[in-house]
Amino acid sequence: MQYNIIAIGSELTLGLSVNTNAPFIAKRLGQEGYSCNCQVSIPDNIELISKAISKSLEEADGVVITGGLGPTVDDLTREAICDALACELEYQPWLAEIIKERYGPRTTPLPEITYRQAYLPSGAKPIIPTIGSAPGIILEKEGKFVISLPGVPREMEEMIETEVVPWLNTRYLINEAYKVRVLRTTARTEASLEDSVKDIMDSLKNVAVGIIAFPGEIQLQLLARGQSEAEAEAAIKNAEARFIERLGPIIFGFDDETLEEVVGTLLKQHDLTLSLAESCTGGLTSKKITDIPGSSDYFIGGIISYSNDAKINLLNVSQQTLARQGAVSAATALAMAVGVREKLGSDIGLAITGIAGPGGGTSDKPVGLIYVALSHQTTSYSNKYVFFGSRDIIRLKSANAALDMLRYYILDNIRAIGGAVF
Amino acid sequence: MQYNIIAIGSELTLGLSVNTNAPFIAKRLGQEGYSCNCQVSIPDNIELISKAISKSLEEADGVVITGGLGPTVDDLTREAICDALACELEYQPWLAEIIKERYGPRTTPLPEITYRQAYLPSGAKPIIPTIGSAPGIILEKEGKFVISLPGVPREMEEMIETEVVPWLNTRYLINEAYKVRVLRTTARTEASLEDSVKDIMDSLKNVAVGIIAFPGEIQLQLLARGQSEAEAEAAIKNAEARFIERLGPIIFGFDDETLEEVVGTLLKQHDLTLSLAESCTGGLTSKKITDIPGSSDYFIGGIISYSNDAKINLLNVSQQTLARQGAVSAATALAMAVGVREKLGSDIGLAITGIAGPGGGTSDKPVGLIYVALSHQTTSYSNKYVFFGSRDIIRLKSANAALDMLRYYILDNIRAIGGAVF
Repeated sequence: MQYNIIAIGSELTLGLSVNTNAPFIAKRLGQEGYSCNCQVSIPDNIELISKAISKSLEEADGVVITGGLGPTVDDLTREAICDALACELEYQPWLAEIIKERYGPRTTPLPEITYRQAYLPSGAKPIIPTIGSAPGIILEKEGKFVISLPGVPREMEEMIETEVVPWLNTRYLINEAYKVRVLRTTARTEASLEDSVKDIMDSLKNVAVGIIAFPGEIQLQLLARGQSEAEAEAAIKNAEARFIERLGPIIFGFDDETLEEVVGTLLKQHDLTLSLAESCTGGLTSKKITDIPGSSDYFIGGIISYSNDAKINLLNVSQQTLARQGAVSAATALAMAVGVREKLGSDIGLAITGIAGPGGGTSDKPVGLIYVALSHQTTSYSNKYVFFGSRDIIRLKSANAALDMLRYYILDNIRAIGGAVF
Repeated sequence: MQYNIIAIGSELTLGLSVNTNAPFIAKRLGQEGYSCNCQVSIPDNIELISKAISKSLEEADGVVITGGLGPTVDDLTREAICDALACELEYQPWLAEIIKERYGPRTTPLPEITYRQAYLPSGAKPIIPTIGSAPGIILEKEGKFVISLPGVPREMEEMIETEVVPWLNTRYLINEAYKVRVLRTTARTEASLEDSVKDIMDSLKNVAVGIIAFPGEIQLQLLARGQSEAEAEAAIKNAEARFIERLGPIIFGFDDETLEEVVGTLLKQHDLTLSLAESCTGGLTSKKITDIPGSSDYFIGGIISYSNDAKINLLNVSQQTLARQGAVSAATALAMAVGVREKLGSDIGLAITGIAGPGGGTSDKPVGLIYVALSHQTTSYSNKYVFFGSRDIIRLKSANAALDMLRYYILDNIRAIGGAVF
C-alpha cells in the first residue's frame, strides 16, 4: 500500500508554519509497513485541495489529509473531499450533540460556526474526537481511501493511533515489510563519515543507507526491505552490527534516542548526579536534560550565570579569573564547573561559556568560541570549540558538545569501574 | 509568478526529519511578491524527482528545489534535473578547484566523491557556495525556471538571499503585490477568537484572514492582495488597525516577533532586570529569554531548582513551605520568585513550578498543574494554570504563561508610570 499525505493550510504555503504532521504520519504508518510516496502542502483553496486529492487517488492507493476540518470559514477540507469524490455533505445531528458536549463546559453560548464540524461527506465513517472538537473522516471509493484528520497535532496523532492504524491494518494485508533504523553520531562532516563507511554501504544488499546532517549531529539512516518482517529485521540487524563495529562510540544512540536521553541513562546506571552551569546557552542544556521524564533522578539543578555578577555570586568564580582570562575562557569554564558542583552538591558539574553571537565577537575571541568544562571529584578539564552558524545553531551545537563530553567522560572513566555500557 | 517548492530526501518521506526549508523559502519569496502554489516532499529516487520537476514546470512558472546536491551517492538532484530537462551533466574543473579550496584546510585527502559536486547540467548558472561545498543551480528552459539549492538550511538560506532573490527580481516584474501580517495573541481558543472578530473578518475586502492555533498561542494571519505594493499595504494596515482596536493587549506581537522578544523590549524600555527560577520547565523559559541577542542587558540569570534541596539551598524556600504546601503550590512559587530576585539582585523575579508529566500527577495535583509567581519590590502574586498535552507542550505553555504574566504586569503596572508602550 502506497499513499500520499496532503497538509492543508495557507499558513503552510505562505511559510508561516512548519509542517510537523506529515513527518509524524509518515513515520507512524511506516512502522506499520505503509509507504509514503509524496507529501504535499496546499493552501486553503477548495479547488487546489480537491485537485490534490484527485491526483493522489490516481497516483496512490489512498491519501491521508490533515487540516481544514475546524469550525472556521477557512476550513474547507470537507467541501473539497465532496468535490473530488462527487458526494454531498450531510448534517449529522448526533455529531452536533457530541461537539456541543465537547465544548460545553468551556464556552457558552457555543458559536454557530462550531456546527460546521457536524457535517460529513455521504458514506463517510466519522472518527469521534476524544481531544478537540473536529471529527475525522474515513471514506472509501472504488478501492481507494481518503482519510481526513484535524491539523492540530495532538488531535491528529490521537486519531492515527486509535482509529487510522487499526483501520488500515484491517483493510490491508502487508506482503512487503520494511524496517528503518537510525544510527545517530557525533561525526563532524557527512563526507568524512561516508568515507569511513563507504565499503560497508556498497556491500550491503537490500539495505539503503542515507547520511543526513543536523546541527551537532550526523545520522546514518538505514532502510531494509524484505518479503517478511523477519527478513527485513535480519537485514537491518546485520547492517547495524557492521556500522557499530566500525564506528564504535561515535554512535551515541539509535532511532529516536536523543543525546540527552543517552546521557541520562548513563548517569542513572552509574548512580551519578549532575548539575549544570550555563552562560551562553542560557538554559538550553538544562532544558534538554529535563526534556527527559524522570530526569529528577539524576539532575539536581542548574545555574544560568548570564552576568559576571551571577558567575561571582552564585558560582564562586573569582573576580581575578574573570578580569585576567575573561568570562569566555577555559579558566572561567573550569571555575564554573567546580562552582556549580560544590554549590548544588552533585557528583558531576558541567559548565558552558562562550560567545553565541551575533554580537560580542573579537578577533581573539570570535563568535562561536565555546569552552565546556567538567568537574568530578578531583578531576576537572575543559574542551575548546569553535562553531559556525547562527546564534541558535551555535547554542545548539554547544549544548550537544557539552552533553557529548559528559557521555565520553562516563564511557572512558566510569565505565571502567562500573561495567560495560555500550 | 507562481512557483512550486520541491524538497528532496527520503528522510522527509520516511518522517525522520521535518521540512523547515519549504516554509523559509515560501516566506522569503512571499515577501518579494512571489506566490508558492504547492510544496512537495519526495524521496531520493531519481524517477520520482524528475517526474515532480516536470509536473511543477507544467503547473507553475518555475520550481525551487532543496536537497540532493551534496557529495554522497544518494544525492541525485543534479541527475534528475538533467532527466526532466533533457540535458547533460558537465564537469566544471574551476568548480572542482573552488570545492577543493572550501574543504581544503579541514579534510585531507579529499574523498573522491566530493567532486560529484563539480558537475552542472548543461546551460546552468552555478551559485558558488560561500558556506558549505555544494554549488546551487539556476537553469532556464522555455520560459520556465529551475532553481536547485542545497538541503542544509544555512547554505540554502544564504543562496536565497544573495542569489535567488536578486535573480528573480531581475527576471520578473511583479504586477500584483501581496502583504502578509501576523497578529500573535494569547487568546485561549480559535473559536472564541473568531467569535470576537467575526464581524471584522466578514467586512474586510481584499484581506483574507486565517486563525491558526499553536501551543500557547493563537495567530490571526492576514493576507492582503492589491495591484500595487501601496494598495496591499493600505489594505493590511486598515485591517490590522481594526483588529488591534478590538483585541487590545491580547495581541502580544506581530509577524516574527516572539513573546520573549516583546517581554525583552518591555524590560529594556523600563530599565528593569529579570531573573528566573524554574522547576518543571527546567531552563526552557531562560532559554527563550536568552534566544534574544542582547538579552544580557536585562537578564541577570536563572536558577533551575529541579530538586527540593536546590529550592531550599539556592532560593531560600523554607522546608516548612515545601512540607506543608508541597513543591507545586502557590506558596512555593511565591517563595521561589522572591528568592531568585533577592539572590540575583534583579528588579523582577519570575518563578515556575508544576507537574509536566507524564508521571507525578495525583488527583489533587494532576499533570499539567502549574503555578507561576512574580515578585517586584513589595509586590508579589501568583497565577494557577491547568494545561493539557504532552510533557513538551505543557512545558511550552508554562513558559509562555510565565512570559505573558510578566508582559501584563509591566503593561498594567509599570506602563502607568513609565509611559505608553503598546
